[in-house]
Amino acid sequence: MQIWRRSFVTSVARLSNSSKTRPSVSRCAQILQSSKGGTCSFEDQEVKVNGFIRSVRKQKRFAFAEISDGSTVEPMQAILKPAQAADLSTGTAVEISGLWKACPPGKEQTHELQTTEVKVVGASDPETFPIQKKYHSPDFLRQIPHLRIRTPFNSLLARFRSECMFQLGNVFHSHPNGGFTQVQPPIITSSDCEGAGETFTLAPRGAAATPSPENEHFFRAPKYLTVSSQLHLEAYAADLGNVWTLTPVFRAEKSDTPRHLSEFYMLEAEVNFMSDLESLTGLVEHMLRDLTRRLYNTTVGQEILSAKRSGEPGQETNVEGTDALRKRWTDLMDGPKWDRITYTQAVQMLQRAITEKGASFEHPPTWDGGLQLEHEKYIVEELHQGRPVFVTDYPKSVKPFYMAPSQIAEGSNTQGETVACFDLLLPEVSEVAGGSLREHRLPELIQNMREHGLIKAREALEGNEASLESLYPHLSPTEDLSHLQWYADLRRWGSAPHGGYGLGFDRFLGYLSGVSSVRDIVSFPRYYGRADC
Amino acid sequence: MQIWRRSFVTSVARLSNSSKTRPSVSRCAQILQSSKGGTCSFEDQEVKVNGFIRSVRKQKRFAFAEISDGSTVEPMQAILKPAQAADLSTGTAVEISGLWKACPPGKEQTHELQTTEVKVVGASDPETFPIQKKYHSPDFLRQIPHLRIRTPFNSLLARFRSECMFQLGNVFHSHPNGGFTQVQPPIITSSDCEGAGETFTLAPRGAAATPSPENEHFFRAPKYLTVSSQLHLEAYAADLGNVWTLTPVFRAEKSDTPRHLSEFYMLEAEVNFMSDLESLTGLVEHMLRDLTRRLYNTTVGQEILSAKRSGEPGQETNVEGTDALRKRWTDLMDGPKWDRITYTQAVQMLQRAITEKGASFEHPPTWDGGLQLEHEKYIVEELHQGRPVFVTDYPKSVKPFYMAPSQIAEGSNTQGETVACFDLLLPEVSEVAGGSLREHRLPELIQNMREHGLIKAREALEGNEASLESLYPHLSPTEDLSHLQWYADLRRWGSAPHGGYGLGFDRFLGYLSGVSSVRDIVSFPRYYGRADC
Repeated sequence: MQIWRRSFVTSVARLSNSSKTRPSVSRCAQILQSSKGGTCSFEDQEVKVNGFIRSVRKQKRFAFAEISDGSTVEPMQAILKPAQAADLSTGTAVEISGLWKACPPGKEQTHELQTTEVKVVGASDPETFPIQKKYHSPDFLRQIPHLRIRTPFNSLLARFRSECMFQLGNVFHSHPNGGFTQVQPPIITSSDCEGAGETFTLAPRGAAATPSPENEHFFRAPKYLTVSSQLHLEAYAADLGNVWTLTPVFRAEKSDTPRHLSEFYMLEAEVNFMSDLESLTGLVEHMLRDLTRRLYNTTVGQEILSAKRSGEPGQETNVEGTDALRKRWTDLMDGPKWDRITYTQAVQMLQRAITEKGASFEHPPTWDGGLQLEHEKYIVEELHQGRPVFVTDYPKSVKPFYMAPSQIAEGSNTQGETVACFDLLLPEVSEVAGGSLREHRLPELIQNMREHGLIKAREALEGNEASLESLYPHLSPTEDLSHLQWYADLRRWGSAPHGGYGLGFDRFLGYLSGVSSVRDIVSFPRYYGRADC
Repeated sequence: MQIWRRSFVTSVARLSNSSKTRPSVSRCAQILQSSKGGTCSFEDQEVKVNGFIRSVRKQKRFAFAEISDGSTVEPMQAILKPAQAADLSTGTAVEISGLWKACPPGKEQTHELQTTEVKVVGASDPETFPIQKKYHSPDFLRQIPHLRIRTPFNSLLARFRSECMFQLGNVFHSHPNGGFTQVQPPIITSSDCEGAGETFTLAPRGAAATPSPENEHFFRAPKYLTVSSQLHLEAYAADLGNVWTLTPVFRAEKSDTPRHLSEFYMLEAEVNFMSDLESLTGLVEHMLRDLTRRLYNTTVGQEILSAKRSGEPGQETNVEGTDALRKRWTDLMDGPKWDRITYTQAVQMLQRAITEKGASFEHPPTWDGGLQLEHEKYIVEELHQGRPVFVTDYPKSVKPFYMAPSQIAEGSNTQGETVACFDLLLPEVSEVAGGSLREHRLPELIQNMREHGLIKAREALEGNEASLESLYPHLSPTEDLSHLQWYADLRRWGSAPHGGYGLGFDRFLGYLSGVSSVRDIVSFPRYYGRADC
């Protein structure tokens, strides 16, 4: 040990005298990855890294620092002379270079940096810096979103999201049925596609102060932030066939839960020439399995599977531990085909669970009532052993206007009362995706709109509107399709059966990474009362 | 010819009698691509396609149809019996199958589909369908954004955008300095990063009707739709090093030009540990060249380069023709290193152009006045032969607060008065990207904010705010950083020199595809007075 220390001091002296050619900058991930097993291409080479001091320990003859540059959760170990470490503290930004040397056996790390030069490019005051090398609770970190990215686990989450987006591109680009086209539908829209009414409106800043008629509507009519891109995806799919998008959506919900945000990313896909629900659920299952498998084969995927949840040894906050997380991934990748049960079966099973298994629910399950969160959780966790399950064919009355009728066998009790849709339930996060076949026939769509109160009274017949009657024989002369006329239009010329789905991207990321609140998955979460930074 | 027709009728008869196994669905692109040169793997095979009738010509003994399924601009030719074509018209959605047969020499197409079965799954009324196989003007198509995607060129544009996004992922994932992390910064923000003030505010629908204090602000304070993600990217880059995003941004500008939209996509990147402007412009040049090269090597890139602009033979609307477009791509990919000139040089060159070359401008170029569009166009097209050019080091007074000072040689006339920034100018679209080094030092940043009027008067010292003075020694006790305090915070612990840029993604797509208005590049464009569908 003593000999090795001496050789370090010698090589430092030699380098600082002779070597004038500066090494190019490497990322910590490249160097540390190369150092794992086999020969390390950086060994005994001079390397340079730009990063941050994660912790520093100063002793009499040497100082030891952990360096991080956001490319891996694993810190790079550096050994320095006390004088070199004088200005270093947690958070300091440094350009550091030195020799990458193998450590003697018995050390935690295989290699360490024998520092030749360290340059402080951004000082950090250790007394005030909120991010230290210790356990920080999610509640605490949520108050400083602009800084929590600097904790190892939150930094890893950002890289994991990035890898998910990249791999999603591969999943859809190479899909067996000829690829999906990625589209960017508008965020500013006229319609509230879910019919829930919890939308945000927008106006130019200061417009409220000058409420003259012409200033009132920048776009001539009220506009909203999109709650779903589905209606526009149908317009794209009507030509392109298979389309997808990953786009922000907005809900002005006041719900205060770890499952909801006012701004979140939705992954949506729409497929033309699709006429059965089994094709749609099959598409969703294929997509999620393919994505998870691709992620499993990446470095960052493996980092997520083995990461300490808080970045601090012994401070595990993932109550389930990583084995439970590994099981999640395995069920997604290699588990048996996910179950499909109808909504009607689900309600019956829940009702039987009360009488036969003594289950109790705050809201007794009824066919008309829809599924509450407690019901969904019971279906996944008790009735399906914590494996993904599709619940299909919900009552028409609890679903939006655009869904196609179920393809349930003639003579069934629920015939004509259900729609061809699904919710995908996962453990913990519960509903993570939903989709349906769409009503692609014009008269039936108009009838659905009528039943959902989406057809306005027509004010006056003038100009182009006079021709509406001949264009829409299914509409009475006093009815107006209003801002949904373009959507009905999609059914007028060459409308084939089609379907699609939306997946809560942040929820799914939380599921894969074992983070139970979407507020800790999204870097700058927005929800009722909170939009910090 | 007659013999060949007879063999068609025979094979149809044979097939409809015997073949009961149905072929799986292929995309037109797969079949047509395979039919180009060499052996076609589909030849003499039964194929099935789901698509649309683009045009149909009915003759006495045969009918001829062009089929499209949105996977390629090239239509698939089908020959049918008159009875099979009876219900077909432009726009009809069909499931069509038949034998893929080589055509005799001399025909425009190498192969055609000898139809065995055609099933209409969505009828189309040819009298009312606005999209016909003829030239449609951009103005006309802009009025029916939900349908214009069904024209061949607009369908191609959608696939081109998709390929751009996919290749962008590759560009950043495999960047030589260790890859960039793709992030999803928030859309709802507190700050107007450009300082232009032309932002949209948002509020829950119906909130205006009930203006009680607690209902007024869903997020407790006024919030805006982001105009740029830069400030948040800096927070990410402070840990991750290299980050990028492709995200919608919003401007409530009333400008009525083919270069501006109220909602558009911005490609932004931020790099930590970057201390000179040449590294930043080098990054931008590398990224755009790499992207263009990758696109050039894709099928859809080649389709864009050779596409007829309106999808109709003889109706070329691209005034420059495709050779000019090919030159754009070549300049981007293989041209000499793009010029860098300083703003001061640019103004001098413009002034000399007036006296020496007789150039005339509506706005005479002055050092204090910034560059007008007419100046930018002259710089690119007259002074740089239509090649990309970076203009750097603009006056501090015309740029936002966050820019770092220029690194101009001591003794220069403009020392201390310019900032380390650039605009990238391209022919026709003019400014397509802009970026800067950021002021990474806290005292200097605060001084900049003060000069830009971004520091508020502090209202009262209470709670946490009492400690502001010790946290921010550069702030007077009556000053408040307000909603930008988090941004200043980024400079407090380990702030390294850094820089980044933003690129107008839609403008750049327009440049690559030869479409001069962003209103025709974005599927559902939003601008002052217009947000259709």
